[in-house]
Amino acid sequence: LETDDRKTLATITKHFRAGDFSEIIENLSRTQAAQLFPVIRKELRADVFGRISFVHQNYILRSVPLDQALELIRQVPEEDIALLLRKMPRTRARTIYEELTELDPEIGRQLLHYDRDEVGRWISYTFLTAAPADTPRAIYERLRARTPRSHPVVSIYVVDQENRLIDRLELEELVRIEATDPIEKLLDREVTSLQASDSVETAIHRFQVRDAVEMPVVDADNRLIGLIRADDILHLTQDAFSDTMQKMGGVSNFDTPYMMTSVFQQVRKRGGWLAILFLGEMLTATALTYYEAELDQAVVLALFLPLILSSGGNSGSQSSTLIIRALAVKECNLSDWFRIFRREIVTGLILGALLCLVATARITLWDVLGWADYTEHGKFSPELVTFTVAIGVLGIVTWGNVVGSLLPLGIRAVRLDPAVISAPLLATFVDVTGLMIYFTAARYILDLA
Amino acid sequence: LETDDRKTLATITKHFRAGDFSEIIENLSRTQAAQLFPVIRKELRADVFGRISFVHQNYILRSVPLDQALELIRQVPEEDIALLLRKMPRTRARTIYEELTELDPEIGRQLLHYDRDEVGRWISYTFLTAAPADTPRAIYERLRARTPRSHPVVSIYVVDQENRLIDRLELEELVRIEATDPIEKLLDREVTSLQASDSVETAIHRFQVRDAVEMPVVDADNRLIGLIRADDILHLTQDAFSDTMQKMGGVSNFDTPYMMTSVFQQVRKRGGWLAILFLGEMLTATALTYYEAELDQAVVLALFLPLILSSGGNSGSQSSTLIIRALAVKECNLSDWFRIFRREIVTGLILGALLCLVATARITLWDVLGWADYTEHGKFSPELVTFTVAIGVLGIVTWGNVVGSLLPLGIRAVRLDPAVISAPLLATFVDVTGLMIYFTAARYILDLA
Repeated sequence: LETDDRKTLATITKHFRAGDFSEIIENLSRTQAAQLFPVIRKELRADVFGRISFVHQNYILRSVPLDQALELIRQVPEEDIALLLRKMPRTRARTIYEELTELDPEIGRQLLHYDRDEVGRWISYTFLTAAPADTPRAIYERLRARTPRSHPVVSIYVVDQENRLIDRLELEELVRIEATDPIEKLLDREVTSLQASDSVETAIHRFQVRDAVEMPVVDADNRLIGLIRADDILHLTQDAFSDTMQKMGGVSNFDTPYMMTSVFQQVRKRGGWLAILFLGEMLTATALTYYEAELDQAVVLALFLPLILSSGGNSGSQSSTLIIRALAVKECNLSDWFRIFRREIVTGLILGALLCLVATARITLWDVLGWADYTEHGKFSPELVTFTVAIGVLGIVTWGNVVGSLLPLGIRAVRLDPAVISAPLLATFVDVTGLMIYFTAARYILDLA
Repeated sequence: LETDDRKTLATITKHFRAGDFSEIIENLSRTQAAQLFPVIRKELRADVFGRISFVHQNYILRSVPLDQALELIRQVPEEDIALLLRKMPRTRARTIYEELTELDPEIGRQLLHYDRDEVGRWISYTFLTAAPADTPRAIYERLRARTPRSHPVVSIYVVDQENRLIDRLELEELVRIEATDPIEKLLDREVTSLQASDSVETAIHRFQVRDAVEMPVVDADNRLIGLIRADDILHLTQDAFSDTMQKMGGVSNFDTPYMMTSVFQQVRKRGGWLAILFLGEMLTATALTYYEAELDQAVVLALFLPLILSSGGNSGSQSSTLIIRALAVKECNLSDWFRIFRREIVTGLILGALLCLVATARITLWDVLGWADYTEHGKFSPELVTFTVAIGVLGIVTWGNVVGSLLPLGIRAVRLDPAVISAPLLATFVDVTGLMIYFTAARYILDLA
């Protein structure tokens, strides 16, 4: 597989059966699985596809042409088709859905109705309901009559005649009453549910707080429409994580897996952000042009420019990471802004002073040892140059720290995702403003015109 | 609560009962919950604590003194104590465990034996086992005799006389046979399990691929020792996510929540990394000293220095994010390095060329409009200055891109976590190497001594 040699692979696998392939695929990475799949003999493909896991199915579906995808998707148990379709880009999902006329129209309704970040989009429709008057025996009968599904029945959802959710019973609770008693006895009518219009973020948080294995999903009238399981939430958490990570790295969200995106797609997704950052960073050239006279008089200032700017970017990137993370896991919220501001000023000053010391030691050492001449041929005293750099570092680290912590809060305040404050964006902002701090300090300390 | 005014809060809540508090706490963020908790009257605290969710319990336990923590932890169902203890820093967990003499010694054994990144540390010990000769009726009896726990029984684990795992049955499967038949009939003896020594990463991946609600955990001899549930995996995923995010932001992992870490702790956790990055970035000053002659002759080079260096850092941060993410979700692995290298060179060249055009347009425009003089008072032709910057941008963007994609792979190759390639670390590396590219280009193009 490593060698990418399809012919050899085809020979090796000539006598493999569907079971062999599915076993191999389960042990491969998703990309490798998608590579292996076309090697499988045509007549076996659909069978193999039906046996492998959802994650691999999803991956393979996105890598084959539409007609093959349609053929393959028919091998998936109906309850899982909805999930597969929902993971796909909406246009492709819609096309496939329209072709699969045998599908439950309910699935299509959800697919078109709810957004990717709403709970309704991720619902599973296979669940067991019961009326309060039902007996355990009746429920067991219903379970027995049910065709086996890929997911076990964990709970029974008790609803009234209008399908409104009353309670949820664990299957194990049924043994606590006689088989002929109504389950009404067991109800405490307290049940945690999600609204179909709730955000995925809310659902993830609810699952984390409740430690639940599954949760019922209801509409605005408390009518039961489906359920969402902890393993669905696990996938959604992973997706949210990918999303946050890419935003923080300054990349638009990729729908397709890394190894499958073409170079052109990559350039398109990254080029925009990169160009915006570049245009922003151009302001440094503009600002520096403004300080050209100072630079002309003291080229030594340029030597420490990247050092100073990057230290501001670094401390900013640290504090923004801490705040973005704290917001994401709800460790703090907007109302804490002043306390955060106060903390980060203090932290920034301490960290700045620390780096200040390091810088002073380094410059003094090089000067004393004669490894470098920072006096511009005797024009400036080494102490003043050191002092300029030290003040620059202190100022910019503190500034970077405060900006890095408040910017994510500001972004959240206007209801955007704070993760868009990527390290690159922050560095750009701190670079432009930071060099003003540095050169203003230099102008006064070195007494430049 | 927002006002932090404990007295007012105490008055308001004077007549609240435990149930009221637990309801309120469930709707608060974790930090707010920890703030509210000390306000609750002493005699109610333990009761309230026993009612709230695991996440909040865990959070509150870390914010109170040891003796209070001990008193509180006795309110938690025994099966959850193990989980709570495992989430805490090891030393504190050990102290608490030693004080709680009434605890199952098994929990202590696991706590001391397995590492935080091993599955064994996160096992739940409450599960239902059965022998192949058992009947559904006998299992129902056992279920009935069991005290209700916070988590429902979903599966029955079938083991032999040496407690070796044979199969797993869903509770719902029991209805498929007569209540007096042995469950042996239902077994297919195919069961996915985890080893206690497996890494948490493996467990997360297995759950994602299998879409499982729970999985049995066995020792090296296939003896069943516990199970791990999808909701535990959800917590572990969130922790892994926090960890990755902090690494990428250049921050050491924080055990305590953001709002609860003291400024001193923050400085300690961040100062180390910041100082290392600062020392690394000092190499830019060293390198620039080496190019001081060029800078002296062409101060104009300094004007574009931050622009050029940051564009390399940005493209590098994008590609490293993509690769770190792809490695984390297993979309690619080490053996793909050459394909990644090839791709990222091409992507880098295209993105570099794009930024090159933007830079050329900007410099030419400013020059033509007379907004800036980049000729150093006529010493250099504007075309050559533009060409130098353009080549610098192209070279550094490509270089940053390649470094950003290969460095995470290299780190993974030596079995470290690729997420340590934080944007700051990458930027530092690209800054130092990038300015060499820029000044070497300048030396030849502008014909500097």
